[in-house]
Amino acid sequence: MAALPSLARIARSGVLPLCHWPAVRGRASWQLHSLLLTPCRAFSNNKILVELDESKGVATMKFRSPPVNSLSLDFLTEFCISLEKLENDRACRGVILTSDVPKIFSSGLDITEMCGKSTEHYAEFWRAVQEMWLRLYSSNMVTVAAVNGSSPAGGCLMALSCDYRIMVENPKFSIGLNEAQLGIVAPFWFKDTFVNVVGHRVAELSLQLGSLHPAPEAHRLGLVDELVPGEKLQEKAAAVMAQWLALPDHARQLTKSMMRKAVLDRLVAHREEDIKNFITFISKESIQKSLRMYMEMLKKKKG
Amino acid sequence: MAALPSLARIARSGVLPLCHWPAVRGRASWQLHSLLLTPCRAFSNNKILVELDESKGVATMKFRSPPVNSLSLDFLTEFCISLEKLENDRACRGVILTSDVPKIFSSGLDITEMCGKSTEHYAEFWRAVQEMWLRLYSSNMVTVAAVNGSSPAGGCLMALSCDYRIMVENPKFSIGLNEAQLGIVAPFWFKDTFVNVVGHRVAELSLQLGSLHPAPEAHRLGLVDELVPGEKLQEKAAAVMAQWLALPDHARQLTKSMMRKAVLDRLVAHREEDIKNFITFISKESIQKSLRMYMEMLKKKKG
Amino acid sequence: MAALPSLARIARSGVLPLCHWPAVRGRASWQLHSLLLTPCRAFSNNKILVELDESKGVATMKFRSPPVNSLSLDFLTEFCISLEKLENDRACRGVILTSDVPKIFSSGLDITEMCGKSTEHYAEFWRAVQEMWLRLYSSNMVTVAAVNGSSPAGGCLMALSCDYRIMVENPKFSIGLNEAQLGIVAPFWFKDTFVNVVGHRVAELSLQLGSLHPAPEAHRLGLVDELVPGEKLQEKAAAVMAQWLALPDHARQLTKSMMRKAVLDRLVAHREEDIKNFITFISKESIQKSLRMYMEMLKKKKG
Repeated sequence: MAALPSLARIARSGVLPLCHWPAVRGRASWQLHSLLLTPCRAFSNNKILVELDESKGVATMKFRSPPVNSLSLDFLTEFCISLEKLENDRACRGVILTSDVPKIFSSGLDITEMCGKSTEHYAEFWRAVQEMWLRLYSSNMVTVAAVNGSSPAGGCLMALSCDYRIMVENPKFSIGLNEAQLGIVAPFWFKDTFVNVVGHRVAELSLQLGSLHPAPEAHRLGLVDELVPGEKLQEKAAAVMAQWLALPDHARQLTKSMMRKAVLDRLVAHREEDIKNFITFISKESIQKSLRMYMEMLKKKKG
Repeated sequence: MAALPSLARIARSGVLPLCHWPAVRGRASWQLHSLLLTPCRAFSNNKILVELDESKGVATMKFRSPPVNSLSLDFLTEFCISLEKLENDRACRGVILTSDVPKIFSSGLDITEMCGKSTEHYAEFWRAVQEMWLRLYSSNMVTVAAVNGSSPAGGCLMALSCDYRIMVENPKFSIGLNEAQLGIVAPFWFKDTFVNVVGHRVAELSLQLGSLHPAPEAHRLGLVDELVPGEKLQEKAAAVMAQWLALPDHARQLTKSMMRKAVLDRLVAHREEDIKNFITFISKESIQKSLRMYMEMLKKKKG
Repeated sequence: MAALPSLARIARSGVLPLCHWPAVRGRASWQLHSLLLTPCRAFSNNKILVELDESKGVATMKFRSPPVNSLSLDFLTEFCISLEKLENDRACRGVILTSDVPKIFSSGLDITEMCGKSTEHYAEFWRAVQEMWLRLYSSNMVTVAAVNGSSPAGGCLMALSCDYRIMVENPKFSIGLNEAQLGIVAPFWFKDTFVNVVGHRVAELSLQLGSLHPAPEAHRLGLVDELVPGEKLQEKAAAVMAQWLALPDHARQLTKSMMRKAVLDRLVAHREEDIKNFITFISKESIQKSLRMYMEMLKKKKG
């Protein structure tokens, strides 16, 4: 429960709106596996392994929720708590997001959370998705995505929300906001984040077509900043992080906030409306039907 | 007159503001040349040939208003009626814009409509230009421009308003918003559309200089998406269209609307003001004089 | 004192807000060194040499405030007066900004103006920085930056505010908004100007890292439009200027205003607030300390 007071503190500070986070109380099986005073600490819960190298001030969050690191309510809850913990830890100035599951960074929002559930569940889930983005996109830490596998939809959003994106050069790995392929629409703040990275035209084309871009194409479009061989990824991420951490934090944080504030404010101002829109959309029988069909397809693929 | 009720229906739907369209009643020599129930239907009026391939759900609008497909009030009226007809035809999901006149896609706004006419005429003409853009830029159909010739000013705007632009690779064909070359200014919504395609810097440079970009340069700047040899243009346009139509319509339409709404809303909110500005500007003796000189030059060139 | 009535006239016109410009009266050692009626006139004051070629309608402003053309209150005051004089001179349609000091275009804001001074001084200085940008970014003249040396921070802003940037291809010369390196933050209107040139993503990355880009990289990023060998710079600047001046002024000016108005209006609307923010920020002991350290470092480097 250690995280709760600081969540409340953040809420009171007015930086982010008060987040109703009932999920935390009832759900979080969050536990400190180790809390050492030596330079390297690690803690984990069910779905994300967090390692903090205090000597460098850098944490690594490793997604390990097989088979595909899908963004379930549990995953998102743990992600927010872990991120907030690091945010409030003076020993941590930067965080690297990466995957512990082969070939996939994150498959995006967990479709089972959006299919055949109650209105209340949809609201809780969508608030958690918003919260993940609000916290990650506005993080005071340097955030680097080390994309070591495919990263569609919500997985792509996580990468886009970081300060820098490095991807394994394997052309079998792809990344993109492919919602339109599933017959659903990326929310406006997914779109805003995407436009801030690749510009309006590339975003329009890619979102309308629901494109998944193989790594080399993603690099050409500016969706990721660099490509490296898989075995060099962590080394490269550490080097990029060191370069960013060479700068004084305060000016960098204010600069980041200046660049991202307009887009963050827009969701904050329309958050409840956005949840309502999501519920209305996802509750439509036609959307439920196509999500069910998509899940059937995934099951057959596996089987 | 079949088009009128549906125009009214669209107006009532609130998607576009009520368009006062007196031109339709008095002017339209719109006729159905053939209306077959076989897969391929065609209809035409004076200036645009429309062919609908029902098996594919794709229409082609061929501009055939020699010598240069200039956007006269008649042309714009026919264009809006044809587009609206297709928009309301459930058999049609996509439209390809191309030219039936050699070497020119469209020369842009018809200068004779802007020279030595009454204030009422300027107002009617400008409303028709606005209407063309509002309908094309917000079309629910997939729109592909197959640019088989030069496309200055208003012709460029039509291409920019589509979802995808393919141009013949001939460097003698050029495209751009070259208004500044004529001593006039591209309206803000031309500019907004341009910025959405090529970004702020390229737009600023190109608009200030009134540049006409040869096809290879236009491609390099992102003003067109692809170049092909002339003989491959229609084939390529069909292939691109098929790729877009493989996606479910509804999500694609909502995505398109999300990307373009801010810019569309801006004209809708300032439409009457924009008409007044146009009338004030075009009525200036200095502007009339330079338009007359320009027309003289064009006549001599022909003669 | 000849400049004062026209400054007041501009203020009354409402194009720019009334500028309280006490500096002009007490400080300006502005003098006409020569005022000839032959095609080429020159005038200078302490820090900027202005040459006007009346036959071409082109002025050149040469910064000659050694050692590094830093933007002191005196420099900025002279710059604004010189620019305004040219703006009101019907014989002048374009201006080229360049440096008379080897290896440096301008080193940016003069740190001595921001260190250990009174609140009133900070306010006066910051208003002068704003005024420089408001006048240059909104200039009716064609403005070309001939960047013949390094150009960090405020020097980069001056280049970014021109219509076109040509830089000497020497990779030892660098340019960028490197404020974050000094622990300070580029103001929002520096950022807006930067985004208008290079787009949101490049700006975010460059501003967060406080990057100084060597000329070839600056060109690749679109921060400068062209690279030339040093000995070709003035020739190239003249050729670019001639190309721009071939266009009618009025349409070009309206187009430029249309592209830049939103960003200019934003500072005009928040000018006093921006001054207050600057004073609050710069008065912090932590900021003063890091500026003092930076100045010490510069002194040692010189010594």
